[in-house]
Amino acid sequence: MTPQAATPAYRRLSVEQRRSQLLESALALFAHRAPEDVSLDDVAEAAGVSRPLVYRYFPGGKQQLYEAALTSAAEALRLCFDEPREGPTAARLARVLDRYLAFVDEHDTGFSALLQGGSVVETSRTTALVDGVRRAAAEHLYRHLGVAEPGPRLRMTVRMWIAAVEASSLIWLDEDKRPPRDELRDWLVEQFTAVLVVTAGRDPQTAAVVAALAGDDRD
Amino acid sequence: MTPQAATPAYRRLSVEQRRSQLLESALALFAHRAPEDVSLDDVAEAAGVSRPLVYRYFPGGKQQLYEAALTSAAEALRLCFDEPREGPTAARLARVLDRYLAFVDEHDTGFSALLQGGSVVETSRTTALVDGVRRAAAEHLYRHLGVAEPGPRLRMTVRMWIAAVEASSLIWLDEDKRPPRDELRDWLVEQFTAVLVVTAGRDPQTAAVVAALAGDDRD
Repeated sequence: MTPQAATPAYRRLSVEQRRSQLLESALALFAHRAPEDVSLDDVAEAAGVSRPLVYRYFPGGKQQLYEAALTSAAEALRLCFDEPREGPTAARLARVLDRYLAFVDEHDTGFSALLQGGSVVETSRTTALVDGVRRAAAEHLYRHLGVAEPGPRLRMTVRMWIAAVEASSLIWLDEDKRPPRDELRDWLVEQFTAVLVVTAGRDPQTAAVVAALAGDDRD
Repeated sequence: MTPQAATPAYRRLSVEQRRSQLLESALALFAHRAPEDVSLDDVAEAAGVSRPLVYRYFPGGKQQLYEAALTSAAEALRLCFDEPREGPTAARLARVLDRYLAFVDEHDTGFSALLQGGSVVETSRTTALVDGVRRAAAEHLYRHLGVAEPGPRLRMTVRMWIAAVEASSLIWLDEDKRPPRDELRDWLVEQFTAVLVVTAGRDPQTAAVVAALAGDDRD
């Protein structure tokens, strides 16, 4: 180990990098304990920096750090869904899931924290953040499916699939990240198509979406 | 309105009925407010009884009432999954979903409370209760599928579907209980079959389950 690695406090990071590092450390701690059981000293220690440095970045102290950590995780998740509307829909969905699963993989404990309410105290705020991400994900999906005004059956299908994807990521973390990420991604895409096909039997709008997806495949 | 209906406090109920009524009223209140914002007077008023009567049933006061309300909701949910292992699996699943959706329909606000963490304070306990119900539901499903030791892919498929069913019930309540309950039930059964078929393409154990389900249909 180099002396530099042993004293991570002295690594030179940009302001943005340092901020991210502190948020990341905080999120990992809040993932395992209630905010009242996490001190700024803990965060400083986990990030390998001094307590005053944490305060310099988050003068509002723990509450500010906690909220910033959750908000940044939600924001990062939202970015996963940003995908140009080009090429076959299944391939776009696979790319979105690639980014999403990479996020889950990289942030494991923080991701669980965010999705499972984070802490016993701040649930309502966390829930609102996560609901915002869910809504954004659904809106992106409607757009990729080429639907401006999704009816109730298509909406329910998309939202159920999003819930199933969330569940799968938590289970995946629980099961030591098995099956491999690429397999999970393809499996989730196949499930999406399968549930759309089921809904298509009950809903003309979804039937049109499924027909368009089948058209993609022929391109 | 008859005088009797106007003074519900004087309806004669059995001890069990009265207890259920109090739990139901409490759950509906806790569904909308944090426990600290619900008083025993509120519960007494909602149930149309006196405050001393509430205390007679729950001498531990609000905390006891709150926990009893959540526990009873979780217990009632668990009972929905109790289904004899007779006849075609899809028909059994439809009966289970019938009971489950009837529960959701009847307890709407309380059900949302239970599933969405109930309150900003008691989340960890609520989560543990709901996780217990989820686990019980998954165990029942494995048994109905005739699988003693479900592998990771089958487990994930079943748990994802359970998450999707939960999501669908919350969305259903959100969308003024549309589509009709029977349609939602059949749709959910079809989705279960569809996602099993997808997993069957990746997992021999699930392929065997799907083959057995197809055998059911031929009976």
